[in-house]
Amino acid sequence: MSGRLISLEGGEGAGKSTVLAAARARLEAHGIDVVVTREPGGTPLGEAVRALVLDPALAPVCPESELLLMFAARAQLVREVVRPALAAGRWVLTDRFTDASYAYQGGGRGQPLQRIAALEDWAAGLRPDLTLLLDLPVAQGLARAGSRAAADRIESEQEAFFERVRAAYRARAAAEPQRFRLIDASAELDAVRAAVGAAVDAFVAVADRR
Amino acid sequence: MSGRLISLEGGEGAGKSTVLAAARARLEAHGIDVVVTREPGGTPLGEAVRALVLDPALAPVCPESELLLMFAARAQLVREVVRPALAAGRWVLTDRFTDASYAYQGGGRGQPLQRIAALEDWAAGLRPDLTLLLDLPVAQGLARAGSRAAADRIESEQEAFFERVRAAYRARAAAEPQRFRLIDASAELDAVRAAVGAAVDAFVAVADRR
Repeated sequence: MSGRLISLEGGEGAGKSTVLAAARARLEAHGIDVVVTREPGGTPLGEAVRALVLDPALAPVCPESELLLMFAARAQLVREVVRPALAAGRWVLTDRFTDASYAYQGGGRGQPLQRIAALEDWAAGLRPDLTLLLDLPVAQGLARAGSRAAADRIESEQEAFFERVRAAYRARAAAEPQRFRLIDASAELDAVRAAVGAAVDAFVAVADRR
Repeated sequence: MSGRLISLEGGEGAGKSTVLAAARARLEAHGIDVVVTREPGGTPLGEAVRALVLDPALAPVCPESELLLMFAARAQLVREVVRPALAAGRWVLTDRFTDASYAYQGGGRGQPLQRIAALEDWAAGLRPDLTLLLDLPVAQGLARAGSRAAADRIESEQEAFFERVRAAYRARAAAEPQRFRLIDASAELDAVRAAVGAAVDAFVAVADRR
């Protein structure tokens, strides 16, 4: 079985970290060799970019720079981690990928979609085989996220920003139903984990036959 | 008289820092209010990107990421420093601008020109009114630069890389003779300063009449 790229996407407070661990465990239970990574980050350069792009002290960051920084981290991740892993037949599970740029820098910051699509073509150059989108009402997500530590530069945005992010994510899921699995992240965590597990099982079953 | 953007370009060991000071002094002698900046850098975000992109400890940096990082710094510089200064009637003198991406990431790293041109359009969105290109044989420049402190990640490249950078700079100067002034940087520093001073005087004389 050749390698596959699975991305996990969602807004603030969607329980992404917990679900990531559950998805990884489920894949490994299928005997799949999984590389787990995150965006922005996953490489020394990418983690340095992450620190920089989330640092409140470096504000203002114009939307164009934010978009370019996200793709700078992504280009490095693809070449240093994702492509070598896929070529070796390993699966890659990533906490966010290009859909996050369409949602946050596109929907949230208003960067034109064709600008993001052009960067996706040459800087990323590949798309996930499966994307698990954790979806929940913005107010509920922010209430959950608010109980955590100090907000970074992007987490400090207002509710209207996150409404645009959610709408952009949902529009992408609707446009590509074969790639996306929409997970109701407003449910109890056990139910969310079960839904993610079922989505992973179904994807592995199909991937096995390819 | 409205604001103008002047960029100073050139390879390693071209004497750019010294010439920058001379060009600034000459502009100020004409009574022009000058903002001096540099690339990558010139803003808190840009200086953080500069530290990151030149750090040997963060290698490897793929050519796509390097290009995106340079434009991330540039987009912020344009919006935070260059446009506000020009709008206020001030002149901006910058140590490198987009031509450096065509030379280093294009000529040096082989990134396609149309990729750089697309980024120039939306991430930079403006071009210098005058570009002073300090040109000298690569071996001479490297010998001069070699007598300085430890090399950063880009200065550590091989001679063939810098030959491609120089060729790309010269090609751009040849294609846009109305914007570029080619300065022979192999001459004694006093002669280089005199040539830069003359180029600045000629440009100011014409700008005065617009």
